[in-house]
Amino acid sequence: MKALVIFAHPNPQSYNAAILDAVKAELGQQTAEVRVKDLYRMNWNPNLGLSDLQQIYSGGMPEDIAREQADIRWADALILIGPIWWWTLPAIVKGYIDRVFSYGFAYEFTEKGLRGLMAGKRAIVITTSGADEKGAAATGMIDAIKTGFINAVFGSCGFTPIAYKNCFGVVETSDEVRRHYLEEVKEFVRNNLA
Amino acid sequence: MKALVIFAHPNPQSYNAAILDAVKAELGQQTAEVRVKDLYRMNWNPNLGLSDLQQIYSGGMPEDIAREQADIRWADALILIGPIWWWTLPAIVKGYIDRVFSYGFAYEFTEKGLRGLMAGKRAIVITTSGADEKGAAATGMIDAIKTGFINAVFGSCGFTPIAYKNCFGVVETSDEVRRHYLEEVKEFVRNNLA
Repeated sequence: MKALVIFAHPNPQSYNAAILDAVKAELGQQTAEVRVKDLYRMNWNPNLGLSDLQQIYSGGMPEDIAREQADIRWADALILIGPIWWWTLPAIVKGYIDRVFSYGFAYEFTEKGLRGLMAGKRAIVITTSGADEKGAAATGMIDAIKTGFINAVFGSCGFTPIAYKNCFGVVETSDEVRRHYLEEVKEFVRNNLA
Repeated sequence: MKALVIFAHPNPQSYNAAILDAVKAELGQQTAEVRVKDLYRMNWNPNLGLSDLQQIYSGGMPEDIAREQADIRWADALILIGPIWWWTLPAIVKGYIDRVFSYGFAYEFTEKGLRGLMAGKRAIVITTSGADEKGAAATGMIDAIKTGFINAVFGSCGFTPIAYKNCFGVVETSDEVRRHYLEEVKEFVRNNLA
């Protein structure tokens, strides 16, 4: 099992960083090969720009994008970890998708419409929210993320199976609940890698 | 009427740029005061980073964010123009929201929950999609954008009214339809500024 972990939080002391540590510990238990992409530490450029488009249209690929695509090709499983900001992941994650999941790499168009090219790869998404479960249910936030982000991106590109877990209310909850969540995260990864 | 136009497309020759021109022409007709934020030309930094958070937590505000907040305070209407990439706007727009729509500026928490602070300001969102109307309806893309982006961001922050128009199938359609869309865009802006 080769796992590519994509991590997106600006604060290395954050609860998201504790989740990353828990995921890495669990992957170690499963003797998976692991590559971690810490997008903030990499200073990832999220802006799909004119020079990117010009290179891609002329048959090339910007070097930083090509490197990520090579790692995704290598991986059996993509594990994304980040906070929910404004009902979706941070801009740096959107910009990873915008730039790396390019036409001809992640998807193509056929006579039958869009076809994902990531078949055979799993996706595991773990997020945190300030909103608790009741608040999130009342607003429809989680359904919006499932439809507008997880299905739109990982579903369209053919990742299967796709597993999603959100840790609710992480700002207001107790340390005990937060510690419990880390155990749940490990179990979640274990169950969804098999 | 003071209108702040936020524009997000990397290519100055794009159809989105033609939409921007149409919107500016219509705003000129309405003798509105206009400020345009061309996010790619501004080289806007979309990554809400650790140093941003540290400044904000200690009562300060990064200079580039403060400048945008001043322009939003100035405006009666915010007009956002950009393409749909992966069922939402580009990362550079998400990063404008992540950084500029900060706690205490765009929203706050009260005993009754989240409260938007943008009451009295209109929002007008104009997007383009490669997907045609039938394809978009089949996948639920437009509903996902309305719920997960427009309501999540502009609704939560109290903008009212909020108007949304998507120009469908702009890649495959004819120049005639594209020209017609530009007239529709002008009418849409005119009707929603009043």
